[in-house]
Amino acid sequence: MSDSLWQLSASQASALMARRDLTSEAYVRACLQRIRAQDGTVKAWASVDEAGAIAQAQACDAMPRKGPLHGIPVGVKDVIRTKDLPTQFNSPIYEGFQAGEDAHCVAVLRAMGAVILGKTSTLEFACGGQFPATTNPWDAARTPGGSSSGSGAAVAAGMVPLALGTQTGGSTIRPAAFCGVYALKPTWGSVPFDGIKGFSPPLDTVGFYGRSTEDLVMLAQAYRLLEDEPIILTRPLRLGICQTPLWKQAEPEAALAFEALIQKLGQLGVEFQPVELGPMYADINVWQDVVMQNGGRFAFLPEALTTPQLLHDDFKAKLNNHLGLKGAVIRNALDQIDRCRMHFEAQLDTLDGVLTLSAPGIAPLGLHTQGMATFNRMWTALQVPCINVPALWSSAGLPIGLQLVHRRYEESKLLSCLLSLMPHLDAQRNPWSQT
Amino acid sequence: MSDSLWQLSASQASALMARRDLTSEAYVRACLQRIRAQDGTVKAWASVDEAGAIAQAQACDAMPRKGPLHGIPVGVKDVIRTKDLPTQFNSPIYEGFQAGEDAHCVAVLRAMGAVILGKTSTLEFACGGQFPATTNPWDAARTPGGSSSGSGAAVAAGMVPLALGTQTGGSTIRPAAFCGVYALKPTWGSVPFDGIKGFSPPLDTVGFYGRSTEDLVMLAQAYRLLEDEPIILTRPLRLGICQTPLWKQAEPEAALAFEALIQKLGQLGVEFQPVELGPMYADINVWQDVVMQNGGRFAFLPEALTTPQLLHDDFKAKLNNHLGLKGAVIRNALDQIDRCRMHFEAQLDTLDGVLTLSAPGIAPLGLHTQGMATFNRMWTALQVPCINVPALWSSAGLPIGLQLVHRRYEESKLLSCLLSLMPHLDAQRNPWSQT
Repeated sequence: MSDSLWQLSASQASALMARRDLTSEAYVRACLQRIRAQDGTVKAWASVDEAGAIAQAQACDAMPRKGPLHGIPVGVKDVIRTKDLPTQFNSPIYEGFQAGEDAHCVAVLRAMGAVILGKTSTLEFACGGQFPATTNPWDAARTPGGSSSGSGAAVAAGMVPLALGTQTGGSTIRPAAFCGVYALKPTWGSVPFDGIKGFSPPLDTVGFYGRSTEDLVMLAQAYRLLEDEPIILTRPLRLGICQTPLWKQAEPEAALAFEALIQKLGQLGVEFQPVELGPMYADINVWQDVVMQNGGRFAFLPEALTTPQLLHDDFKAKLNNHLGLKGAVIRNALDQIDRCRMHFEAQLDTLDGVLTLSAPGIAPLGLHTQGMATFNRMWTALQVPCINVPALWSSAGLPIGLQLVHRRYEESKLLSCLLSLMPHLDAQRNPWSQT
Repeated sequence: MSDSLWQLSASQASALMARRDLTSEAYVRACLQRIRAQDGTVKAWASVDEAGAIAQAQACDAMPRKGPLHGIPVGVKDVIRTKDLPTQFNSPIYEGFQAGEDAHCVAVLRAMGAVILGKTSTLEFACGGQFPATTNPWDAARTPGGSSSGSGAAVAAGMVPLALGTQTGGSTIRPAAFCGVYALKPTWGSVPFDGIKGFSPPLDTVGFYGRSTEDLVMLAQAYRLLEDEPIILTRPLRLGICQTPLWKQAEPEAALAFEALIQKLGQLGVEFQPVELGPMYADINVWQDVVMQNGGRFAFLPEALTTPQLLHDDFKAKLNNHLGLKGAVIRNALDQIDRCRMHFEAQLDTLDGVLTLSAPGIAPLGLHTQGMATFNRMWTALQVPCINVPALWSSAGLPIGLQLVHRRYEESKLLSCLLSLMPHLDAQRNPWSQT
């Protein structure tokens, strides 16, 4: 069994550890070995401290269990500060930088006994500039998506069962879709952004990656996001279907896979109701971009003042307000988004969740792109919780992301909905189990 | 002159330094001497590094000027991380803690040549728990307000010309009102909160203290908050008057001073228009509190998990959701605030600014209280820029804060309005010039 320990999900490993059938050290060593075997191709990691991770695991094995996360290894996107490993933001300015302190989201996991395995590769400052070298574990010729490229790829490749990312546009859900892993972008503001390099405050959100719904439940519980324990609902589900304003940008194969799933679920008794967006949402991705670019006017000021020669031109353009954003335009974007949020959430009263696509299609070819956030920007702007479920597949067997959305602070309902859907979804494929 | 150098505002000192009539070292030494003379009573500082500040000043004097802030000393609220001085949050958990990295707002000032003089006293985590020992420089029997107690008091006492604070309820504007200094709470999100211990993400805002309007302009320019250069308007001003829903909680002396100023300005040609809030705002302070307490459910989780014995019960109550907040209540509070914001800002089209009170009255007696944020919570929730002007005075000569408000991203207009009003305001009194 020790040869395939790295295949375990976090919740499977946690159950084994609770029964003392698995040590943290054995699990962590299996992950480290998998990294050694795979990361030459996948390039998911900015830094791994093998000795430090093993020491953390041994310490966990020697102390009483602190809960489900005890002894479980986690990867941390390298825009999130950690007290031991370097935090480099994929920026030459921060090469070898030691933050000396854990971000809030890391401190919580560490306090609950998680093992911080390493830092995962990211787009520079999770924003622009330099791309990471990370490849897609399903097909190394394809992008893993971004900006949380390393977190999505590391979980997909079997290198670590859980990882942290961030999302300002589509940076958590899109890599999850392209890499075929589970991810949760919780309600904006519910996991503090303290200790993470920000980009746009009304959008910046911590995101989680895992290998199963139970993994996401475990993380949501750790951060106290659940009003109630998620349960499998025995009554018929009632789901919204949301074809966002840019649905025509969905690739035919993705749209067909989505429709086929709706049809299948309908035959199984799920009730569907279209979520009406209407013309008020037509420009919501444009407003999201205004809010995002507005953040860029302020976020990189320290770096521009101290080390301009090492700051990519992308960030200088944002700092210099290359879009010429004025207060009136920013206020309008924020207000229109607020109106859409009220309109959207009002439709959730009678729904268990809303189904949509996580990305326009499979991961594009090439590492010069990270794909489009077309189907993520709206949800990030609305600040609502979203889950990627690897439940749709291309004819070539590549993952297409199914996205499940609810209104703010309804992570419990969102996870109950997913738990209830799971038996009917083809959502347990992994790159290593493919032919 | 060197005996009274500490009395200079930042902009006065900057002008002298630009002409080489003043060195940073002389100015910093004068401030340090003033701290030694006054801080036994005022207790505004959590830590001051005399040698480090002098070394920074000498380095500034030896290099070409980087701009208006070059060589100007600044106090930093001790919930904001600094790379050299300790960052202690007034919490026993962080006693002697060295963050090793500047928060964004500190990094910007340092990059522009400012001298980080020391860390100012704060309410524990700027949120609850332990009060600071800081007294009001106008009357040591009174509170300086909070939670940015030390920043307000240090600027008022002549110990430092500029300081940074934060505001989640009324934590920047209220101490400014009670201490009789200038302060600006800019538009939410425009100065990144990176590196500051947060409390409630939709409310947390960096704030600035100074000794004059020009000092606030200098800081707003440093953070690139100004769409246009603020100017003195030669046409008649058109101002809104906003008696917030809880205006009846204003002390009679404060309400009378406010009305007398309106009358005086009216005689000078200022046009006034009431800002109508109506019943939709009736509960806005309650909604602000819901949003604030909701932040407290998440903000202190790392400390609760790692060092519960050192965490004040205030924070444990918040973490345990002592108000029993549910998603529906939080969404409602956020939505109602959004509706009020749209309604309020729509009235600003034809106004140069809105006048209101910064606090219900003068600083209360005693250090067991920090006064009420009654007249601040609404503006914090609306995320709009606010200025405190020390332009109203009690019969005993104590400061009563005048508050000037605009809509988001209109710091330029707000400061133009204040520059235009200045000749007509009695707003240059200091504790040291009183009998």
